[in-house]
Amino acid sequence: MNQTPRTEPTGLTRLALGLSEPRGFGDQSLIAPDPRAVRLLGGIPAPEALPVADIARVSGDLWTDPDAAAAALQYSGSVGFEGLRAWIAAREGVDPARVVITNGGMHGLSLVVQTMVERDALVALDDPVFPLFLRLLELSTRRTLPVRVLDDGLDVEALGDELAAGRRVAAVYTVPDFHNPTQVSLSAAKRRALVELAEHHGFVVIADDPYRELRFAGDALGADAFHASDRVVHVNTFTKTLGPGWRLGWLVLPRWLVEPVVRLRNRQDSHSSTVVQTLVERLVTTDGSWFDRVVARATALYRERAGVLVQELSRQLPGAFTVSAPEGGLFLWPRLVDDAVDPAQLYARAVQEGVVYQQGAFFAAAEGTAAAREASRHLRFAYGDRSPEELGEAVRRLAVAHRSLTAG
Amino acid sequence: MNQTPRTEPTGLTRLALGLSEPRGFGDQSLIAPDPRAVRLLGGIPAPEALPVADIARVSGDLWTDPDAAAAALQYSGSVGFEGLRAWIAAREGVDPARVVITNGGMHGLSLVVQTMVERDALVALDDPVFPLFLRLLELSTRRTLPVRVLDDGLDVEALGDELAAGRRVAAVYTVPDFHNPTQVSLSAAKRRALVELAEHHGFVVIADDPYRELRFAGDALGADAFHASDRVVHVNTFTKTLGPGWRLGWLVLPRWLVEPVVRLRNRQDSHSSTVVQTLVERLVTTDGSWFDRVVARATALYRERAGVLVQELSRQLPGAFTVSAPEGGLFLWPRLVDDAVDPAQLYARAVQEGVVYQQGAFFAAAEGTAAAREASRHLRFAYGDRSPEELGEAVRRLAVAHRSLTAG
Repeated sequence: MNQTPRTEPTGLTRLALGLSEPRGFGDQSLIAPDPRAVRLLGGIPAPEALPVADIARVSGDLWTDPDAAAAALQYSGSVGFEGLRAWIAAREGVDPARVVITNGGMHGLSLVVQTMVERDALVALDDPVFPLFLRLLELSTRRTLPVRVLDDGLDVEALGDELAAGRRVAAVYTVPDFHNPTQVSLSAAKRRALVELAEHHGFVVIADDPYRELRFAGDALGADAFHASDRVVHVNTFTKTLGPGWRLGWLVLPRWLVEPVVRLRNRQDSHSSTVVQTLVERLVTTDGSWFDRVVARATALYRERAGVLVQELSRQLPGAFTVSAPEGGLFLWPRLVDDAVDPAQLYARAVQEGVVYQQGAFFAAAEGTAAAREASRHLRFAYGDRSPEELGEAVRRLAVAHRSLTAG
Repeated sequence: MNQTPRTEPTGLTRLALGLSEPRGFGDQSLIAPDPRAVRLLGGIPAPEALPVADIARVSGDLWTDPDAAAAALQYSGSVGFEGLRAWIAAREGVDPARVVITNGGMHGLSLVVQTMVERDALVALDDPVFPLFLRLLELSTRRTLPVRVLDDGLDVEALGDELAAGRRVAAVYTVPDFHNPTQVSLSAAKRRALVELAEHHGFVVIADDPYRELRFAGDALGADAFHASDRVVHVNTFTKTLGPGWRLGWLVLPRWLVEPVVRLRNRQDSHSSTVVQTLVERLVTTDGSWFDRVVARATALYRERAGVLVQELSRQLPGAFTVSAPEGGLFLWPRLVDDAVDPAQLYARAVQEGVVYQQGAFFAAAEGTAAAREASRHLRFAYGDRSPEELGEAVRRLAVAHRSLTAG
């Protein structure tokens, strides 16, 4: 039928070709670690902190109610369940119209990046940074402006200097509470200063806040400064409180961004699972304090575990690390004191001894910088899903590894 | 801190700006119709065809098994559950490595379009076409080459002529089984011819096949010709068999496309819900014939409903429509015989009488064409989720509306 010469097969899009191969910190290290090792790998909630009995209850109620079951199995709207949005909005202190339901935090980030960050635009971000955000950002750009994370969060003053000097960014990405990996939180004053910069320069702040609920010491720093601005996108998820397996989260968007984000979301996968939304809505609306009780039970666990980990490092490896006691979240970010200890060698020995964690170098926002060298001196321990006994054993193994590099 | 002049706020990306406002056929007509009307609107499975008792069983088993519950609440891999992929692969007759789990058919389409269709590329597609694909395609392009759908599916010969004349397309989109809206299927010979064109010209066939399982008459036309080619992407979903509310589907990809699609998927929303995958995997692997039994029960319902609808149109509106009895799927695509009847007026009167359906004009792939005029002479009835009594009543109301326009 056709006499034209055979052409080359259609290739991949520029978008697809722009996505790098996974390396370093990645899915596989989180999902399929050596089963014999004590794993301090992922920011994963403790299984015993997840409300399985309540899930069984709402699930049983749902599937034995024919009308409710039928509704749960049908299509629903792209913006998400009204009741769920209302519950979230009440907690966030915003109009429910500003809440969009997502398939979790990564999904919220990807929707915002695709809607707001033009191809090859410059994006400022935490340094060290959550590495999966760097990977996700490739949906739009690889051009980044790393900004150091200090003890009170992102160095907003340094960012302001860059902007004052004429640098233009499309967005600033930061994890304001219990930052991954450095465990610090952005101070209230810096939140306000960051919002002022965003409003002055016209960029968007992407505030990625999955650990916010997991505070077990100190005072909450609040999202009000973020929610009051039309230049801030707040990204959150039920992953760290009700479990990653749901794949359910939310965005709090400035009003002008709601429709564009929902349009994109509608075209990419229509809507979040009606089944999942039904179950989670029933859970969180069980009564006025159910979610707080779940979070309180979880943070009690995490407080204990963080404490054990800090204590064991101090007891079994005195002087080896600079450690700050976390006020919340799932991470400890100890720094090696002895410059003679090579962190890659330490990790190799730790693996041999049967303890695995994320190496600080994986979190550098760019290679070959002073910040990257500083990050590489750190270890990221995720303690949330390890028992106190496992944490003690992990430190024991790490101590053996550390001594083997420093003895003699 | 900053003395530079205030700049304009960052705007939306070109991607976001390229997404049109919903109009005509859209979410709201599917989700929030007038409750008093008989609705023949969406390709929705009958609630009574969905296996709620079995869902209650596997769900109860899952949430009362602590280890399984914990696993269901955790992260899982981007490519999808191994057991689910193996089960799908066995049914499709392909290597499980070629199966990627998605959040349903639309999600599979969006992943493929974003991976394969370069911005502003030309895409050939069914005319009439599933309107939500046109909307989804805006993720990459608005440039389309509509190809008529004939009684035996897409006019592959006409497409071949276009290609022979030098037109180059990145992809060809078609619904090969029980096409939405025209209810026809692509003949086996045309499947082979389409694959040959794809291999010769180097484009990708996007075969969107959500209705394939719902055959209640005639012989299956098979996916083998598609699966044997490295130029065909097969898109499918559990939506029409187990319910849209899960948001779970799959792609059968040529090997070379698996990694690029998974990379994109990983960055957009990580993975499909572990909870949903766990429940659906447990359902379909209940025993070797469970899924077939669910489908058989559903198709028995749809056979009856299609029959009633055809019969009632013939009985209550003799001579008003040209009708073909469907062999499967969820749609009837009757054509108005009397050219004097204006389809928009008919629809307005039908709404007044209390019956709603999709107007054929919504399905035209382009405006102002002969194909669009032809499509506008049709009505799309979705009969799957209406009882025989409701279908009889729908036709009674339509007959009143039709007579009001033809009574002389």
